[in-house]
Amino acid sequence: MPESKKKCTVRFEPSGLRTEVPQGTILLEAAHKAGIYLSSICGGDGYCGKCKVVIDEGQFESRPTTLLTPNEIRENFVLACQTKVLSDMTVTVPKFHSLETSQILMDTDAHRFSELVPKGLVPKGLAPKGLAAELGEGIFKFDPLVQKIFVEMSPPTVSDHTADHERLYLAIREQIDAPIMQTGYRILQKLPEVMQSSGYKVTATVGRRGETTEVIEVEPGDRRSKNFAVAVDLGTTTVVAHLVDLTSARTVDAEATYNSQINFGEDYIRRIIYAEQNDAFDEMQSRIVHDVNNLIVTLAERQKVDLQDINAVVCSGNTAMAHFLLNLDPTRIRREPYIATAGFVPPIRAAEAGVQINKRGLFYCLPSVAAYIGSDIVAGVLTTRLHTKKGISLFVDIGTNGEVVLGNKDWLVCASSSAGPAFEGSGVKHGMRAGAGAIEKFDILEDDSVQFRTIGNKHPVGICGSGLLDTLAELFTHGIIDRTGRFNVDEQARVTEGDEGLQFQIAAPDDGHQQIVITQADIDNLVRSKAGVFAAIRVLMESTQTKVDDLEAIYLAGGFGNFLDVRQAVTIGMLPDVPLDKIRFVGNTSIVGAKTVLLSRKALKTAEQIAESMTYFDLMSHTGYMDEFIRANFLPHTDLSLFPSVAKSVVGGV
Amino acid sequence: MPESKKKCTVRFEPSGLRTEVPQGTILLEAAHKAGIYLSSICGGDGYCGKCKVVIDEGQFESRPTTLLTPNEIRENFVLACQTKVLSDMTVTVPKFHSLETSQILMDTDAHRFSELVPKGLVPKGLAPKGLAAELGEGIFKFDPLVQKIFVEMSPPTVSDHTADHERLYLAIREQIDAPIMQTGYRILQKLPEVMQSSGYKVTATVGRRGETTEVIEVEPGDRRSKNFAVAVDLGTTTVVAHLVDLTSARTVDAEATYNSQINFGEDYIRRIIYAEQNDAFDEMQSRIVHDVNNLIVTLAERQKVDLQDINAVVCSGNTAMAHFLLNLDPTRIRREPYIATAGFVPPIRAAEAGVQINKRGLFYCLPSVAAYIGSDIVAGVLTTRLHTKKGISLFVDIGTNGEVVLGNKDWLVCASSSAGPAFEGSGVKHGMRAGAGAIEKFDILEDDSVQFRTIGNKHPVGICGSGLLDTLAELFTHGIIDRTGRFNVDEQARVTEGDEGLQFQIAAPDDGHQQIVITQADIDNLVRSKAGVFAAIRVLMESTQTKVDDLEAIYLAGGFGNFLDVRQAVTIGMLPDVPLDKIRFVGNTSIVGAKTVLLSRKALKTAEQIAESMTYFDLMSHTGYMDEFIRANFLPHTDLSLFPSVAKSVVGGV
Repeated sequence: MPESKKKCTVRFEPSGLRTEVPQGTILLEAAHKAGIYLSSICGGDGYCGKCKVVIDEGQFESRPTTLLTPNEIRENFVLACQTKVLSDMTVTVPKFHSLETSQILMDTDAHRFSELVPKGLVPKGLAPKGLAAELGEGIFKFDPLVQKIFVEMSPPTVSDHTADHERLYLAIREQIDAPIMQTGYRILQKLPEVMQSSGYKVTATVGRRGETTEVIEVEPGDRRSKNFAVAVDLGTTTVVAHLVDLTSARTVDAEATYNSQINFGEDYIRRIIYAEQNDAFDEMQSRIVHDVNNLIVTLAERQKVDLQDINAVVCSGNTAMAHFLLNLDPTRIRREPYIATAGFVPPIRAAEAGVQINKRGLFYCLPSVAAYIGSDIVAGVLTTRLHTKKGISLFVDIGTNGEVVLGNKDWLVCASSSAGPAFEGSGVKHGMRAGAGAIEKFDILEDDSVQFRTIGNKHPVGICGSGLLDTLAELFTHGIIDRTGRFNVDEQARVTEGDEGLQFQIAAPDDGHQQIVITQADIDNLVRSKAGVFAAIRVLMESTQTKVDDLEAIYLAGGFGNFLDVRQAVTIGMLPDVPLDKIRFVGNTSIVGAKTVLLSRKALKTAEQIAESMTYFDLMSHTGYMDEFIRANFLPHTDLSLFPSVAKSVVGGV
Repeated sequence: MPESKKKCTVRFEPSGLRTEVPQGTILLEAAHKAGIYLSSICGGDGYCGKCKVVIDEGQFESRPTTLLTPNEIRENFVLACQTKVLSDMTVTVPKFHSLETSQILMDTDAHRFSELVPKGLVPKGLAPKGLAAELGEGIFKFDPLVQKIFVEMSPPTVSDHTADHERLYLAIREQIDAPIMQTGYRILQKLPEVMQSSGYKVTATVGRRGETTEVIEVEPGDRRSKNFAVAVDLGTTTVVAHLVDLTSARTVDAEATYNSQINFGEDYIRRIIYAEQNDAFDEMQSRIVHDVNNLIVTLAERQKVDLQDINAVVCSGNTAMAHFLLNLDPTRIRREPYIATAGFVPPIRAAEAGVQINKRGLFYCLPSVAAYIGSDIVAGVLTTRLHTKKGISLFVDIGTNGEVVLGNKDWLVCASSSAGPAFEGSGVKHGMRAGAGAIEKFDILEDDSVQFRTIGNKHPVGICGSGLLDTLAELFTHGIIDRTGRFNVDEQARVTEGDEGLQFQIAAPDDGHQQIVITQADIDNLVRSKAGVFAAIRVLMESTQTKVDDLEAIYLAGGFGNFLDVRQAVTIGMLPDVPLDKIRFVGNTSIVGAKTVLLSRKALKTAEQIAESMTYFDLMSHTGYMDEFIRANFLPHTDLSLFPSVAKSVVGGV
């Protein structure tokens, strides 16, 4: 008979959250159970070293690791994923795990792109601002996927005996083009009551599914003004939602949150493996659905919108995330033949996926191209309009992976580099998402002093994408690192020997805050990451015989932060050496694309055409990719002739 | 504090079924509760006199009634709906309530019309038999609403990375025309497992919903031969189901049952009132759904068909019955403005209505025209093909109501006479449905002796529709009743004074069986019923200026019995006086129409066009109808010039 295991209570400080687990439970699991977020890239395999916590009290057993410094070991740091709970314990979770510190920019960031709706989509003739204006006139008519239509009908009489259902159809068809119509069973059942109680003046909510117009709701009276929808960007790390008023096409509010699957691995490949090993696909779905619902409820409560008046959700995101959300088998995304279960997901009822809006509301997923080219990339093309331009443009999305699209109105090619999420802050000692306290701008001045700006002007707690790009470029241009990325130890007083080898001090320790440094390993990671992206760009350009001079525009998307210096992306050799006015930082094009689709049926069709017409290059099986990657593992590149402007201003100057 | 009522046990003989009810419960309700079927036309209002039972033992309280004869009162007969249970009781349910006696013909009848599938619908080139041949070549291509398609795909490889879902679509589209496709969420979820386990050789079940082709099932391997559907005729009295093999278009089996709503009233108006007064709409739905499920399960078990291989149900029936089945509000069918909730019911998932077939199987309802012209009539037109003929034809369906359609390929008009279900046996002392022991053929011979045939050659227990038609015609042609329907008492020894006035003895009492008579009240009912039908025909003919000579064909539909002498329908003045070779008895065209639709998408579209193009005449508000009705309340008619053949052979001869 198995002996029943002793129960241990684990208390986490400073939150005070506690949980009870059987003796022998891994501390990382105990943290999950208590609802504590601990950074973890490797999903608990013990090699990323992110899940550090301090044991204040209690007995534990920890496997040896090289990922803790002698100092950390002295301070009772352990890796939560390598530690077993043996008694009641008290554990302190260091501040760097905290999600809260990042909340502010998420909102700002989301708001910032809320105006990215092409002109034609604005029904009231409001002029678009910012990028929307730059991108030119919208090509889509305002024609949302879900509409509310107010219909005033004559009540039936003995001489006008048309049934309620057909009466409603006739009235709807007077206002919109809807050759094929469908009504849900529950709507049919309640129709007579709504028609009669309102004197045959009702508001019909109609959703479009392919060529079919479906009546998804019928309400008494004129409720046209209560028609909302939510666009969602399903990121591996961050989930962003915009609440859109479908009457005015206005973005009412925006909100973002961390993807709470993050406990199971920071990249989606890790999460797929975790789900396979632990039969946790339901859990994966429930977490991401929970995140989406939380965002929707937060937005609805803040804007005093009834959830029943939210009639559609449009998602875009990478292929794995869309599979997790819908609980479609994602396992072959990570394993030969590297395919998706579905690239095109037909619209379903949101309730079927557990998304809590109007219970007959519709859920749309933008189409994806391949296992590693998700609908977020299709949304990016839709937003930047590569597919409409005569000249050749390049679209680069830097996230957990780096996806690249090249093309024009006649052709589109794409590839995904598994370059890793270094520019999202992962695999970088003090890397972090673009949130409060993140260093987003960094300069080395002439006198070798440094200058930086943090998001929200907080005390620096880490470095976000734009700050990392600056750091790498500045270290390089000031000769503190050489073209291979190695520190020139002679050059700078700020380069010191740390626990993990040489490191450069960006911010000194202050007021109880740790110092912020960048290590040799961080630099190697960042160089590998940019090399992966550039190699992908090269493969696509070589395959299509596109010269650098042929590029009319480069669009750089991703969650770098607010102020990205695109010049630095050329300096480090991530983007081709084109005149700087050809490069645009376009932020989160995934959410903008989702929103565009929400507001225009034509945009959804266009997204489908884009997804169908894109040719995918599988870099893993591409013979030239590894060569290109190795050649790109220099600053800016092995072949300086590819970066004449950098060679002239930087390398030539060293 | 309310005193808790004493409980009484009521036992019903000969079944032995018993139930416990509170003291004071109405005996009819106690019978329902025990699962006993008692005839009741009025739904418990105490005026039809059908729910007679014998109290063997126990105390009761019965309201006075004129509907029991002195003899019956002596034999302890009561009306169950007017009797309260005051103590434990034993009650005998007379045989005439029994449903079992009618089972045999139901099957025969159902089988008889199973071949009524137009030629074009038979995929294997089998020649149609019987009426199908008479009706001419089928105009519909075999193209069932639900198909199983076997697709063999190449498994994905690194260089062929099409997702499972799109791979399936491509393969399906190689075989059928399906520009717009949709896949259910649950199917998407299981798709990868089915694809991989079968080596990418799967059977897809596709259902058509409007222009959309929906993948409703995916199975490993070749399962094309396992594709079945059920056509259902939802009658007020009888529910008929045909099991159809969608691979061969063959009707595999047929079954029929009484509509178990019958306890709540024999006509649907009564049932609507009952449901309104007792908030029993859910109960109404549950009963008819239960009946349909019972039929489906019976057919499936008998034919060893897996319920999961039944992929569609197509229903036709009167408007009220379709509303009950789907629990759509039917109340305005009986009340101004006399409208339906829905004439066109979009296809839904059968499971939504509680119909137990494949859980993603589809449920289709044929479209109806108006509150009193149901989809059974549309099915009748589809089957008899009025809408394709150059010449004018008349379609008459005698059921609980009498519906009439007149028209040709250019126009169709229709009307419904609320003539009552006399020819279905209701409101007639010894009337009954066409079942075992029913007198289906009746003649008065030259020597004034009588001759009859019963269904199944059983001892006569009642008279069904064809027998009633014969009886009325024979009494009239032999001068036993006059043109007003009154008995000529001098004429016949068989006319005697019964409990309810004068009556004609059709069968003498024998061997413990009661005598079978037809009473003056019965004759009045039958005459009123035929007058209603003929008046409706006249209104339509007058309104369209159609002369009797213009009629190229008359189709008479209904559950009269196997051998209907159409000549008698003219003799009594129910149908216009046309040459007899123009009249066809076509039986249950409702089920044939439903089956045709099942087998051909085009037929569904045609049914929709028929329903849309039919002009409905509301007889209740039609000024001429009452005059026509009064004029038709003679045998054959007040105006003998309308019935020259009858005037010559019968009236002239009297």
